[in-house]
Amino acid sequence: MNAGFREWRHVFKLDPERPIGDEDLERLCLSGTDAILVGGSTGVTEENTIDLLSRVRRFAVDCALEVSDPGAIVPGFDHYLIPMVLNASSAEWITRKHQRAIRAYAPLIDWREVAGEGYVVLNPDSAVARLTGADTEMDGDDLAAYADLAEKLLSLPIFYVEYSGTFGDMEAVRQAAARLSRTRLFYGGGIDGPERAAQAAAVADTVVVGNIIYANLEAALSTVAAVKPEASLR
Amino acid sequence: MNAGFREWRHVFKLDPERPIGDEDLERLCLSGTDAILVGGSTGVTEENTIDLLSRVRRFAVDCALEVSDPGAIVPGFDHYLIPMVLNASSAEWITRKHQRAIRAYAPLIDWREVAGEGYVVLNPDSAVARLTGADTEMDGDDLAAYADLAEKLLSLPIFYVEYSGTFGDMEAVRQAAARLSRTRLFYGGGIDGPERAAQAAAVADTVVVGNIIYANLEAALSTVAAVKPEASLR
Repeated sequence: MNAGFREWRHVFKLDPERPIGDEDLERLCLSGTDAILVGGSTGVTEENTIDLLSRVRRFAVDCALEVSDPGAIVPGFDHYLIPMVLNASSAEWITRKHQRAIRAYAPLIDWREVAGEGYVVLNPDSAVARLTGADTEMDGDDLAAYADLAEKLLSLPIFYVEYSGTFGDMEAVRQAAARLSRTRLFYGGGIDGPERAAQAAAVADTVVVGNIIYANLEAALSTVAAVKPEASLR
Repeated sequence: MNAGFREWRHVFKLDPERPIGDEDLERLCLSGTDAILVGGSTGVTEENTIDLLSRVRRFAVDCALEVSDPGAIVPGFDHYLIPMVLNASSAEWITRKHQRAIRAYAPLIDWREVAGEGYVVLNPDSAVARLTGADTEMDGDDLAAYADLAEKLLSLPIFYVEYSGTFGDMEAVRQAAARLSRTRLFYGGGIDGPERAAQAAAVADTVVVGNIIYANLEAALSTVAAVKPEASLR
């Protein structure tokens, strides 16, 4: 496996459906972030994915695709991250879509570039929670049990705690992180500036910054130094 | 992980709910089989599990518990195999029951003794298929895609193809086996004597013999030499 993602501390997540100007994109790619993660819940197409990839590829930063629609898989990314929603209600979001995609694309898959993400979706009002019927009612012990499941039973390289637009319960995230030794904990949700970025960085291995990019680019850029103090020395 | 199960070629599966006499049990344990796997879909209790374990423990053979009911987990087994039904319709049988069990028992779990099994349930008329709402309609390419899912995305140590009382499609099993390099393929279902045992052994890493034990012990015992010709030399 190309395990470069194990070094990521800070990631910007870009939605191919949302427009972003060249200058803003350049600032994100040169910010000192460790990677650009391309992904979105809806409206991801082959066309907008290729477009965004080709624009990010002008820079040296790692670029990964989080696969939500197998129809929008595009070659040329450094990593392909495959979300499996561990707290979904239907098997569709854990194994079945994945099995169908593997069946359809097996000869084209280079497994060295692929990594599974054990997602836990925690904002009940988010599109992804509604879509997957996620059971979002949980405390720190529940989240920690999902972390054990992801690492000990499934050996997933990434455990992704997704609060989708709301800032999460850092104490619960800390409890889950304490269970993990090989699996990397990604945190996403509600990071709107350096303070929350630093709080998330204190408990998670990797901090994912998404929506704020589109609402306030300066705030988004300021999260890099909060997560990676050494990056600001570049 | 205690990976002793990686050496198993032949396994007898005993259901704690079904009575078996001491003499028959002794013959099974001394047959040259590699392990006794204790498990059943219904009626497994702490009491009948302890009873069977203590009787098997008089012999040197490996003894593993396949956990179907977290309330019937008993200490003292060499391995605890945790089935996850990859082709179930509900998340209950893939992640959710498991998460609740981990939450309840986390401090007691020795993960070195635990291994996940990626099950694919293939007999639509079986109790387990009905219970889990399994999607059993599949061809060899489908089964092979589940094998990839189990090994490449989930790194499960065991991929368990379960035909439950019917003898499976060996060509489909062969297709799935061809996808696996680290994950071990267990085959179970319809092995009623040496011929089918040898056919299954030709494609699977590990052959599981169950029901026939209770219907025809001599036939069951004859499967050991069919799977492990060297065992008959003991």
